[in-house]
This record gives sequence, C-alpha cells and structure tokens, in this order.
Amino acid sequence: MDIRLTSNSHLLTDLELCQVRLVDNSLFPWITLIPRRENLKEITDLDYTDRHLLLDEITFVMNIIKKVFSPNKINVAALGNIVSQLHIHVIARYTTDSAWPDPVFGKAEKPYSSEDLAITKLKLIQLLSNSTSQ
Amino acid sequence: MDIRLTSNSHLLTDLELCQVRLVDNSLFPWITLIPRRENLKEITDLDYTDRHLLLDEITFVMNIIKKVFSPNKINVAALGNIVSQLHIHVIARYTTDSAWPDPVFGKAEKPYSSEDLAITKLKLIQLLSNSTSQ
Repeated sequence: MDIRLTSNSHLLTDLELCQVRLVDNSLFPWITLIPRRENLKEITDLDYTDRHLLLDEITFVMNIIKKVFSPNKINVAALGNIVSQLHIHVIARYTTDSAWPDPVFGKAEKPYSSEDLAITKLKLIQLLSNSTSQ
Repeated sequence: MDIRLTSNSHLLTDLELCQVRLVDNSLFPWITLIPRRENLKEITDLDYTDRHLLLDEITFVMNIIKKVFSPNKINVAALGNIVSQLHIHVIARYTTDSAWPDPVFGKAEKPYSSEDLAITKLKLIQLLSNSTSQ
C-alpha cells in the first residue's frame, strides 16, 4: 500500500474488498476506501465482481457517513493524479464548510484533536462492524 | 434534467441507465453520466440493481475514453455541490494538461471548435453504440 495513503489517515476496518481509513482532517469528515488487490490504478482494473463489491462498500460507507455526520452532500471521487494506487474518497460536505461549494482537494487541513479522533473513530468503527457491506 | 447539466455539454447517447454527454471543454476530454431516474441526489438513492448498472456504465465509458484519448489517468467523481442532481464526471487526464495534478473542477475552459467537436462526438458515439454496457 502506498505510504501516502496511510501516513495522514487512520485505519478503521477492512471490508471484504476495501481497507477503510479516516483522513486526519477535522475540517471535512473524509473516508478513503482502498481496494485490497494488487496493482490497481483505475476502477477498470477491478474484475466484474470486485467492481460491484466496490460500489456496495462505497454505498455502505456513505450510509454510515449520513448517520454519523448528517452532511448536506457527499462527494465521491477516484482521482489518483498524485497517488496512482486506486483509492476512493468519500467526503461529508456541508454548505457551511470552509471549501463549499468547491471540492476539498488541496484545501485547508486541520488534524483532529486526540479526543475528537478517538470519538470519531469509535462511532465509525461501531457502525462499520455492525452490518454487512450491503 | 437540470439545465446546468445540459447547457455546456452535448448529448452522446442514452445507455440503459445513464444519459452520456460530452462537456464542451476541449482542454480536458470530459464525459458526464446522468442516471435517468427521478429525484436522485446521491449514489445511495439508486436501488441495488441500478447501482451496479451505474458502475458497469462508468466502466464502459472509461474503456472508451482510454481508446479514444489514451490518457495517463482517468478521474471519476460524483460531487454535486453546485448541481445536486446526481451526475458522474469521467475525465481523461494527462500529466501535461493545464490543471495537472489538480482536479479540473473550476479550472480553465475552452470550447471545442465546431470541427473538433464533430470529430470527437463521432468517435465517441461510434464506440458507445458498438458495444453493450458490460
């Protein structure tokens, strides 16, 4: 796994396909899904079954983000211009957040306090472990 | 369909789920997929079958983009901060393009010349009509 995908984020869980991580930026509740297969760059590199599993897991994470963060909108993106290993951003957005209505990529960052990080991780991990990825 | 999704783009085809449109910005080969269902804002608003169909159609379009444009990377994103109706951006990126490695949203725009538009549409429509969405 590319170190740049893990150095600024915290492990939440491993689903059937993806590792799920919380990006350490308290300004935007931001999760990344990283499919645990070799040599993936584009969604097209996944086989038919894994592609559908990817969207099931994205949907699962989106529904958890709705429950925990009650956002106005969720941004979903697979970019990979800087880190080419396939990873999907799932980001809770608010009409009041500091980047709205722009995308958050390259915008301000503010790490979680240790207390906020612990609380946020706990809420997410509980929900991630309570259901199947459907 | 939200007029802001159609006013700066050109119809290519209707797939089983999505209308496929070419964004009129010659700086970045850029296609949008707009699921043809009522009242969609998030991917989670699609039912299970349509969600999988969405990823099949995204994959189909990505493979056509690879053939026509030979990009270095493809960006896939469902943002919707400005136009909330669900639409997915599929964008061919080059390490030499004017926005690299940033996302293209909100960056420079340059409409196609009428000749380039006709040629680009023709190539894409031929491939979009030649295959199934798998």
